[in-house]
Amino acid sequence: MKVYFDNAATTAMDDGVIDAMIPYMKEHYGNPSSVHSHGREVRSAIEKSRKKVAELLNASPSEIFFTSGGTEADNTAIVCGIHTHGIKHAITSPIEHHAVLHTLEECEKKGHIKLSKVEVDEFGSINLDHLQELLKANPKSLVSIMHANNEIGNINDLSAIGNIAKEYDAFFHSDTVQTMGHYPHDLKNLPIDAVVAGGHKFHGPKGAGFLYVNKAKKITPFIYGGAQERNMRGGTENVIGIVGIAKALELAYEDMDGHRKHIEKLKSRFIEQLQENIAGVSFNGLSADMDKSLYTVLNVSLPPSEENSGMLLFNLDLHGISASGGSACSSGATVGSHVLRALGASAERDSVRFSFSRFNTAEEVDYTVGKLKELYGVIA
Amino acid sequence: MKVYFDNAATTAMDDGVIDAMIPYMKEHYGNPSSVHSHGREVRSAIEKSRKKVAELLNASPSEIFFTSGGTEADNTAIVCGIHTHGIKHAITSPIEHHAVLHTLEECEKKGHIKLSKVEVDEFGSINLDHLQELLKANPKSLVSIMHANNEIGNINDLSAIGNIAKEYDAFFHSDTVQTMGHYPHDLKNLPIDAVVAGGHKFHGPKGAGFLYVNKAKKITPFIYGGAQERNMRGGTENVIGIVGIAKALELAYEDMDGHRKHIEKLKSRFIEQLQENIAGVSFNGLSADMDKSLYTVLNVSLPPSEENSGMLLFNLDLHGISASGGSACSSGATVGSHVLRALGASAERDSVRFSFSRFNTAEEVDYTVGKLKELYGVIA
Repeated sequence: MKVYFDNAATTAMDDGVIDAMIPYMKEHYGNPSSVHSHGREVRSAIEKSRKKVAELLNASPSEIFFTSGGTEADNTAIVCGIHTHGIKHAITSPIEHHAVLHTLEECEKKGHIKLSKVEVDEFGSINLDHLQELLKANPKSLVSIMHANNEIGNINDLSAIGNIAKEYDAFFHSDTVQTMGHYPHDLKNLPIDAVVAGGHKFHGPKGAGFLYVNKAKKITPFIYGGAQERNMRGGTENVIGIVGIAKALELAYEDMDGHRKHIEKLKSRFIEQLQENIAGVSFNGLSADMDKSLYTVLNVSLPPSEENSGMLLFNLDLHGISASGGSACSSGATVGSHVLRALGASAERDSVRFSFSRFNTAEEVDYTVGKLKELYGVIA
Repeated sequence: MKVYFDNAATTAMDDGVIDAMIPYMKEHYGNPSSVHSHGREVRSAIEKSRKKVAELLNASPSEIFFTSGGTEADNTAIVCGIHTHGIKHAITSPIEHHAVLHTLEECEKKGHIKLSKVEVDEFGSINLDHLQELLKANPKSLVSIMHANNEIGNINDLSAIGNIAKEYDAFFHSDTVQTMGHYPHDLKNLPIDAVVAGGHKFHGPKGAGFLYVNKAKKITPFIYGGAQERNMRGGTENVIGIVGIAKALELAYEDMDGHRKHIEKLKSRFIEQLQENIAGVSFNGLSADMDKSLYTVLNVSLPPSEENSGMLLFNLDLHGISASGGSACSSGATVGSHVLRALGASAERDSVRFSFSRFNTAEEVDYTVGKLKELYGVIA
């Protein structure tokens, strides 16, 4: 059996998305900036995609900019938000994705900002009082706090954070890569300046993302060149990527509740079976709290075991189970998870992130728990 | 008849490229940074693509970085070349693509560099003596001069420019977007530090490009995030784009001479027929010189005509002919061509760029010249 439980790293593309993209590979190949018929038909596809995304997120089409992915979108919001608005101080959390952390650290290294980190507790919850203190001492900061953590699944309250940010005239950006396409976003009614998406996190293509920037907080471009994306991003548009990400978001919204219910059942089943069958199992962050974490993510902390120490992902892989230790986005690196370190997780326990999609089944959960039981020496 | 003569703006994808990409949409969807089997098979495809590109260009795989296109690659070489090497002065030409010009102008605006422009004559030829003077006064500059101009087709001598740059310890970047896949590049034997490619200019996908950086002149990343591209570009890789651009380059090299001969015949036929049939026709830049210009580009200057003034592209489009005025990459803009302006082209004459690919035919040339004859009132 092959089981793919690494959907927070990337998802399989939906057939409907592939079908939407293929005509723009085979037939409609014009450059959207060209004024002739070959170009116009492609321009039209891009603008329809932008309108669709804007409509689903309750934003204006002029607030949506297509990028090469979530990471470029995060870089754009942060680097150009700081530059455009003359920002001198930024606040982030120690458990952000590297697309945010490394970008901000680089801005600090270049002397553009001073960077502060808001405290998180051992469950990865943001200390909002500390955020308020930091903002009080540094009004007009850039605040970058993710909507949901990619490793432990914790969901932050964007309204609460946004209202505090607003009080101190901050530019509030949130890395929403893990919630886009899985939770509804109502951007006109959220006190937020910038959010992002990566298409491949919700059954769309890799290499396609978008950035929302509130029209009241315009920023300068990150990539200079032609007049594409209303002068906000030079470079011939990734047409198939744009058509694909818009279609993926459309499909995600078509039955978001249905997908959610299906996946929540899988996650609950997983938690219950683990608790029943593996003594000493626990869960990192808030990932076992169904209300306070992504329904797509379960981060399991397994009891110390000589046979599995440092080998758990490898052992699961041998059984055909694909999962991740910490964030797959940096799993090629030799360093451990900066998120689990920030939570003070024990180095003696192995942690594994299982992450789910609408394509997973209860049988896959049962199979995986069965293999974990074998690996941890539990007699079935 | 539908005629696509805008191949310098973008090309139709080769069926072989599409066939290479589709398995990475349908079957192999893992994240290349994941260590499990789903990830490893995709990582392998990326590294094979990098090796293929490096091999074709006589470079090392460690010198090839995949990007979202030529524009991002140009931005990376320029912004990060300047930052990494502490460069204070840059030299470019007034007829560069906006991906280079606007990026350098922005660097100057931010106070990172002072920007000088090398003189070009009325045919768009670079004054190499002036380049030498500028470098003598400003050693250790960044020099960014394109290999071939996208509007008028002029080809610059990269060896000659590179040798001058080397003499003054400059960082030499060239926007090679128009020659990559159409001319052989032998990077180990060229005095150059950075070149770029955009896949869609040689029958590959839009949204995929690469940057070559000479290993002796390493630069810092442009986009920060995960450890992708050996820490040189954060963000989950555009796997289909990478597989596609490598396949497109492979197909381009398989019969580069054959493609060249086929297209050269079309271009010669076009020039001859225009000269025979349209009194007062001329050609911008060196585009009518078969040895000194891209075989893919012909920039035609038509005699003043009240009926066609400002309407030529529109009139051609009505007859099913897709061509471009100046560069299609910025043809959505209302401003005219900065290249033709730099050459002092007459504002009374209409200019049109016809650009060819291996998929064009002699019949398309004849049809187009026929329509131009009609539009310019020549009785057939």
